[in-house]
Amino acid sequence: MFWGRAAQVKLAMDASFWKSPDMATRAHSLLIILAVLAADALAAELTSKKSPTMAEVLAASKPADWRSVDPENTVYLELTNGRVVIELAPPFAPNHVANIKSLVREHYFDGLAFLRCQDNYVVQWGDPDGEKPDKKQKIQTAKAKLAPEFDRALDPKLPFTKLPDGDVYAREVGFSEGLPVARDPKTKRMWLVHCYGMVGAGRDNPPDSGGGTELYVVIGQAPRHLDRNVTLVGRVVQGMEILSSMPRGAAAMGFYDKPEQRMPIKAIRVAADVPESERTRLEVLRTDTPTFQALIESRRNRREEWFHFQAGHIEVCNVPIPVRETLKR
Amino acid sequence: MFWGRAAQVKLAMDASFWKSPDMATRAHSLLIILAVLAADALAAELTSKKSPTMAEVLAASKPADWRSVDPENTVYLELTNGRVVIELAPPFAPNHVANIKSLVREHYFDGLAFLRCQDNYVVQWGDPDGEKPDKKQKIQTAKAKLAPEFDRALDPKLPFTKLPDGDVYAREVGFSEGLPVARDPKTKRMWLVHCYGMVGAGRDNPPDSGGGTELYVVIGQAPRHLDRNVTLVGRVVQGMEILSSMPRGAAAMGFYDKPEQRMPIKAIRVAADVPESERTRLEVLRTDTPTFQALIESRRNRREEWFHFQAGHIEVCNVPIPVRETLKR
Repeated sequence: MFWGRAAQVKLAMDASFWKSPDMATRAHSLLIILAVLAADALAAELTSKKSPTMAEVLAASKPADWRSVDPENTVYLELTNGRVVIELAPPFAPNHVANIKSLVREHYFDGLAFLRCQDNYVVQWGDPDGEKPDKKQKIQTAKAKLAPEFDRALDPKLPFTKLPDGDVYAREVGFSEGLPVARDPKTKRMWLVHCYGMVGAGRDNPPDSGGGTELYVVIGQAPRHLDRNVTLVGRVVQGMEILSSMPRGAAAMGFYDKPEQRMPIKAIRVAADVPESERTRLEVLRTDTPTFQALIESRRNRREEWFHFQAGHIEVCNVPIPVRETLKR
Repeated sequence: MFWGRAAQVKLAMDASFWKSPDMATRAHSLLIILAVLAADALAAELTSKKSPTMAEVLAASKPADWRSVDPENTVYLELTNGRVVIELAPPFAPNHVANIKSLVREHYFDGLAFLRCQDNYVVQWGDPDGEKPDKKQKIQTAKAKLAPEFDRALDPKLPFTKLPDGDVYAREVGFSEGLPVARDPKTKRMWLVHCYGMVGAGRDNPPDSGGGTELYVVIGQAPRHLDRNVTLVGRVVQGMEILSSMPRGAAAMGFYDKPEQRMPIKAIRVAADVPESERTRLEVLRTDTPTFQALIESRRNRREEWFHFQAGHIEVCNVPIPVRETLKR
């Protein structure tokens, strides 16, 4: 671009500036040359402004670039060492989300525990006595099992910010409603993607054997082979470090072989049921905005000084979806 | 497939079996029908045999499918809660590997600590007093800085098991010498890939500011944007769970803000320098064999009964490179 312009300027100089005997024409040519150079400088300035770092993108974001998490679609895991906040995903798993909220509201999860922490894979909680008919936690009005919601009809009206770099597993990947999503325009289906922090409903072999009584969270490399095999129900928006740093279980699949290793769940609550003063006020960066597009670009090509080589591409699970805590009212 | 054959069989029956008045023709048709059905059963049997699970691939592996780690290219991190084993990668970072072994052998690392644990990213160790000229660990004969080994010339003679499913970041990905590798046939370069468990040499902004005095290990989603930005020097082959479950640091980039949170490094040793009776005997599955090809296929299409949907594809960082501990002599 720069050399192209330089050649243009040189051409303008050759063509009219030196060869014209007329001072007015020379002055006119000089003005054109100066205008071209000024336009170049402006373009360079704009180009560099078009490629900010993620920190700059976030610093320049407007309040409208953020959305508050909906307390009715948010659950808190209250653990001995802190709170984990999960935003549920009703557009993708409406029945599971409703059932999980029912389970939460009948206190099904309170007193259960993390049964499993498999390195580079998942943590999973549930009922340690789930196999003992007399001791297991009883379900009241919620359902124990649900039909799977592995994928759903592709809704072109649902905002979708598509990534330009493709994907190894799906025809299209991008973001809808603050969540990593894959789509297949041929089959007209869309589904949530197993990125770090995504929450899913564990199941046995039959596809309809899940329902939300056992939930897992991805704590390692995106296990994309689980896509369309499990119903994903939401995403951890705060507190991942509590889950990801749990001791790994020594038994097969990361199950704890010693009951005392299981981190207990004090309670799970729907945020809307928690007094306002005790809520964690979070805002998530909207994924359907020019700001989020700029964020994606800032991660495809890293402009921070440290970077020697710019990847020029990005995988869906390497795009951060920023969350910030706002002051309590 | 099955329904297609059924239709063929039905066609054969319609065409000749019922309509032919000739018993010999009827018998002939019947034989053809039975032969088709038998061929189907055989094909189904062969198909299922062609697609074993990973457990079946490993159970059927021969001793020659495995290689022992070379004690001269292996280092042990001796930590308060166990040993982490790193296999170094001299084909990709010969100078860094040599320098790290020099640092280890002059006991540079002994008594240092983990300075940083950033969730879904890396743990990193180094000298807590590295910024204090009077207190910092002194380097004897090793080098503090090295020219980068971000990539190397593509050597077509180096075994390379290429993945069939492409990659978002590189033209080719696969495995060489038990390591995840990317290649670019156009530029004739190849480089190690930042998968879970890969070990790299931290650096400051200048590309030649690393050298191995600070090393990091990937503990989250593969940070592929670091490829060709840092010299990768090897892979953790045992003990990842010790690193990945460390408490996350609260300061920027996961640095520990409280010195007492830093896990100390009792010592780092080259395995060859450790008495044989104290070595961890590990074998790594070779990545240049039909067995490893079968393993890749077993992960591209999961045949375990639990799977409802088979991905048909795999990302380079989702292919496990199995390691097994053998009995001590």
